[in-house]
Amino acid sequence: MARRLPQGAAYQAVQREILARIRDKTWPPGALIPGEIDLAAEFGCARATISRAMRELAEAGVLERKRRAGTRVAANPVRRAMLDIPMVRQQVTDTGRAYGHDLLFRAVEPPPEAIRARLGLRPGTAALHARSLHRADGRPFQVEDRWINLDAVPEAVSVDLAAISANEWLVREVPLSTAETMLSAAAATEVEAALLGCPPGAPLLEIERTTWLGDLPITTVRLLHPPGFRVVGRV
Amino acid sequence: MARRLPQGAAYQAVQREILARIRDKTWPPGALIPGEIDLAAEFGCARATISRAMRELAEAGVLERKRRAGTRVAANPVRRAMLDIPMVRQQVTDTGRAYGHDLLFRAVEPPPEAIRARLGLRPGTAALHARSLHRADGRPFQVEDRWINLDAVPEAVSVDLAAISANEWLVREVPLSTAETMLSAAAATEVEAALLGCPPGAPLLEIERTTWLGDLPITTVRLLHPPGFRVVGRV
Repeated sequence: MARRLPQGAAYQAVQREILARIRDKTWPPGALIPGEIDLAAEFGCARATISRAMRELAEAGVLERKRRAGTRVAANPVRRAMLDIPMVRQQVTDTGRAYGHDLLFRAVEPPPEAIRARLGLRPGTAALHARSLHRADGRPFQVEDRWINLDAVPEAVSVDLAAISANEWLVREVPLSTAETMLSAAAATEVEAALLGCPPGAPLLEIERTTWLGDLPITTVRLLHPPGFRVVGRV
Repeated sequence: MARRLPQGAAYQAVQREILARIRDKTWPPGALIPGEIDLAAEFGCARATISRAMRELAEAGVLERKRRAGTRVAANPVRRAMLDIPMVRQQVTDTGRAYGHDLLFRAVEPPPEAIRARLGLRPGTAALHARSLHRADGRPFQVEDRWINLDAVPEAVSVDLAAISANEWLVREVPLSTAETMLSAAAATEVEAALLGCPPGAPLLEIERTTWLGDLPITTVRLLHPPGFRVVGRV
């Protein structure tokens, strides 16, 4: 039975109608829903409108689309959050603040066992280790403690990390295909507190990130942010 | 010039070759790369293999694909992390632990201003407020402090939140299309420390999440996790 959709962006009206039918169990969890062509005919709109509405609902985990098998209401929608992780300079300047960074430490040395394993290095292999403080309007924004796999990116050893941060050099020069990110809360050590301008023990948002190019580990980094810092994700 | 790709999963070999050409600036940032049909001919593999390789690299932010305009090397790849946010019961049982929860507090009351704005409620409108402690093997796993928009989900008021947590009821009964998630670190208050079994001031990973059904705000929640808890994201 054809149903008149309310005015407004047509694909949003389609989404509202699909969601209403899921909410009232016309289409219960796991149910196969009609195809795009049938829905376009029922709602009296273009197939592209149905397609856009369904694509967004699939990205949000409300619907599950399978080639040939059609579209189902998700049985147990796993919810998601997509975090953007831009270059640190961009994070700072996007909020209208002046960016600066200091190289605190640089060495080529064998990493501790946990880092060695993450970078897939043989025991005794040296890697590039750099620690930087990133600033926004002169104030501490982030401590970056990074290891770079010199087997994968040998040219990193000759980069002037006081002039360009390891973060920025990697983003500009080294494409990455895969990343694992871990977020947690950590209490500031004495050194971290001094660097970030907060009391020792203050809660810091910690981001640990390992990145690969294909199956080759490139770099692993631990980022620390002062109290009040937030990472925002959207779906 | 045809180029023989190494053995192994064909799409991974294609990815490695694409990444090698980006690394050595054969295809510099911003450059248009050949189309799928041309690459399939050059590499002597199926177009579907090229398509899969390029889709993954686009999802990782290495390539930018535009309909009609072709595929380019990303000029300034914004890196991403996709976090899965499953039902809390599933987070606990997926790690082989027994799940339990206690309802600590439940009321229908006007929310504070920040919550009211997030839920798009008129001043003075009451919402459902519930606080629960989720446990893993009897130990504190998460404090959930949640507000539910009763204009959007009036049936929430009659749910027995001691029997089923607000998190689980919402995941099972209310489809969500959009979410905003904020992650930060917070110092445990006296009450939070007592609930989570940690010292006051200990660093807690805090997740604030607001979810919509279409453009209708459904719920906003603040989740607190004891020290040592990690959220993992992958791309």
